[in-house]
Amino acid sequence: MAAPSVAEAAASWLAVVRPLEARQLPAAEALGCVLAADAIAPHDLPPFPRAMMDGYAIRLPDAGRTLPLAGSVHAGDAPGSLPLGSVLGIMTGAPVPTGAEAVVQRELCVVSGSTVQLPERIRPQANIVPRGGEALAGATVLRAGEPVTAMAVAVAASLGIERLSVVPRPRVVVITTGAELRQGGSIDGGAIRDSNGPMVAAMCAALGMPCRRLSVVDDPVAIRAAIVGAEGELIVLTGGVSAGDKDFVPAVLAELGYTSVVRGVDQKPGKPLLLAAGAGRLVAALPGNPLAVHWCFTRFVAPALRVLMGQAPGPETVRGVLAGILPGSRDRPWFVPVGLRREGGRLMVKPMPPVSSGDVVTPAHAAGYVAVAAGSAPIASGAEVEVILCVG
Amino acid sequence: MAAPSVAEAAASWLAVVRPLEARQLPAAEALGCVLAADAIAPHDLPPFPRAMMDGYAIRLPDAGRTLPLAGSVHAGDAPGSLPLGSVLGIMTGAPVPTGAEAVVQRELCVVSGSTVQLPERIRPQANIVPRGGEALAGATVLRAGEPVTAMAVAVAASLGIERLSVVPRPRVVVITTGAELRQGGSIDGGAIRDSNGPMVAAMCAALGMPCRRLSVVDDPVAIRAAIVGAEGELIVLTGGVSAGDKDFVPAVLAELGYTSVVRGVDQKPGKPLLLAAGAGRLVAALPGNPLAVHWCFTRFVAPALRVLMGQAPGPETVRGVLAGILPGSRDRPWFVPVGLRREGGRLMVKPMPPVSSGDVVTPAHAAGYVAVAAGSAPIASGAEVEVILCVG
Repeated sequence: MAAPSVAEAAASWLAVVRPLEARQLPAAEALGCVLAADAIAPHDLPPFPRAMMDGYAIRLPDAGRTLPLAGSVHAGDAPGSLPLGSVLGIMTGAPVPTGAEAVVQRELCVVSGSTVQLPERIRPQANIVPRGGEALAGATVLRAGEPVTAMAVAVAASLGIERLSVVPRPRVVVITTGAELRQGGSIDGGAIRDSNGPMVAAMCAALGMPCRRLSVVDDPVAIRAAIVGAEGELIVLTGGVSAGDKDFVPAVLAELGYTSVVRGVDQKPGKPLLLAAGAGRLVAALPGNPLAVHWCFTRFVAPALRVLMGQAPGPETVRGVLAGILPGSRDRPWFVPVGLRREGGRLMVKPMPPVSSGDVVTPAHAAGYVAVAAGSAPIASGAEVEVILCVG
Repeated sequence: MAAPSVAEAAASWLAVVRPLEARQLPAAEALGCVLAADAIAPHDLPPFPRAMMDGYAIRLPDAGRTLPLAGSVHAGDAPGSLPLGSVLGIMTGAPVPTGAEAVVQRELCVVSGSTVQLPERIRPQANIVPRGGEALAGATVLRAGEPVTAMAVAVAASLGIERLSVVPRPRVVVITTGAELRQGGSIDGGAIRDSNGPMVAAMCAALGMPCRRLSVVDDPVAIRAAIVGAEGELIVLTGGVSAGDKDFVPAVLAELGYTSVVRGVDQKPGKPLLLAAGAGRLVAALPGNPLAVHWCFTRFVAPALRVLMGQAPGPETVRGVLAGILPGSRDRPWFVPVGLRREGGRLMVKPMPPVSSGDVVTPAHAAGYVAVAAGSAPIASGAEVEVILCVG
């Protein structure tokens, strides 16, 4: 059976991904999440009529008169009342005193000693936000389905709404497998340092996702224990997914009752990609080569994380102009890392083909990928191409 | 003197902002920062010739022969040697044994008991990444001026480079001023809850910037102490910057030796904006109304933070199509919050004009701003407009 295309595999995979159950989170933590319920104003906002300018609180019939200044009201003062036949100084944000019908800007008045001459024409309620003018008690102030923006955080704060009901961020657990992996430090013999763990953690950080990391040897018992013990909604495994005699991941997943959703994709890098679901969790088992991990995270893992958060899956794309030859591909669709650079009004796309299948040194500063169809000849500099943007 | 335009004010302000001094940061923390120095490979990568496929390590003259299988090499095994007249099984990532001249894919061989029949034609070095094939010791693997991507984190990890020299993130200190402000909880009298502090903190979080918050009353001694004690490269003050009789911020900044760079901008909201520099620090003193804080952060603070990080200032813009009437503006250029929605291939821009100058409820889910020129008539639905994107 032919391996599915990237688009087919992504469609099958995302078809089994559902947004997480809503949770009440502190508003600051909810930033960037999608609201699962409307937020309702528990009281009027502003809670009192508020001055929008520095000036004088006045009665309308006093327009044109010169009146004594009876004092000043500042932001934070308790609401008072305006004595008849006088004006009160008032500062921006202060509660407008009872009886006042407008706030007149300081610049429009003539102040002399302790008297204030008012202008002839004053608009009713000028420079006053009425009580509840921004939101009445009971009104919907934040809407389900919309994202929690910084302004939404401000709205919640101003109304004393401490928690918001949102689709939370999934917890990601990254399990790198391989007896050859060392966590930093020196290496010798056939050992290498684990680079997939730090890279996947960085991609999660770039998406704002919490992520826990562990590394296990190629041993079915160890891999099984790591999967069973992982506290998260999505598990990223790297390595152990191919057809080598220590590639235990597929068998362990099957034994644990996970359903294989995608097993092999017509792509380079990352052909042996395995995507599975079970026990309310998703597993993305990525081939161990670092470039395959990066591509598969960009194209399959990040979209699943977005859907778990109730967002559109992406990946985001932009169009740009090739600044260099894009090599052709023989047998499989090839996803070539590219750098992006703005030049004048144009987005220039520089191909950064790896020197080996797992090379991340050459494309270390890549910002995206360009798809090269199987059997395609090299594409010349100057052609317009679509770029799939990287995650971090 | 007429207040400068937004573009003029931004240019004056950014002219005094310099990228921060480089620091050595752990690679994971450096994610998203600009490299201040090249990173050099301390050893060859891979550190040994590495098998790119599961298969057999062979000598070229043995092509076409049937040879005994002398064992297997796995990833993590110490490099060995290939006995004459035999083949060794080898797994992806394993060190290629001395004497081997190619790795032949398992699928191209005929295995029978403990013998392996090799294909007739074998390319020299097939499926082998030579030692140093991705990077030779001493080579530049990450380049100054480029951002630390997730792949760059992987490169650093694979070479044991624990710290990277980068332009660090500035530390932001947010000081909200006003006797009327309460930090959550219940309110009465003329008190309001502080919404600017949580909003600015959220915008910093959306930019990945560390941020500390404090709130002080309108008192020159308290404001002065807060500024002097602030541990950060950029201080955001809110409130106290207008011409009211408790607006002490300008005087305190002058007294502390800060140079005023911008004092008043021809814009709505946020006309009294004050931007200052001194003592190696930047101060953005924003008018206290929440929408002004949001706009001024988007247009003046976030660009300064990006320049401090060695990045292009922004703000980012996109073009879209008005889905609703954009109101005209009388006296000043007006920056109107807008929502964004993708519809078919088009980006629809929905005006969300606030009901009062500080209203953040109406635009709570805004994703950007559209500039309306002073004196302009309303703009009809369907017009193409430029949108300045929000930060968070």
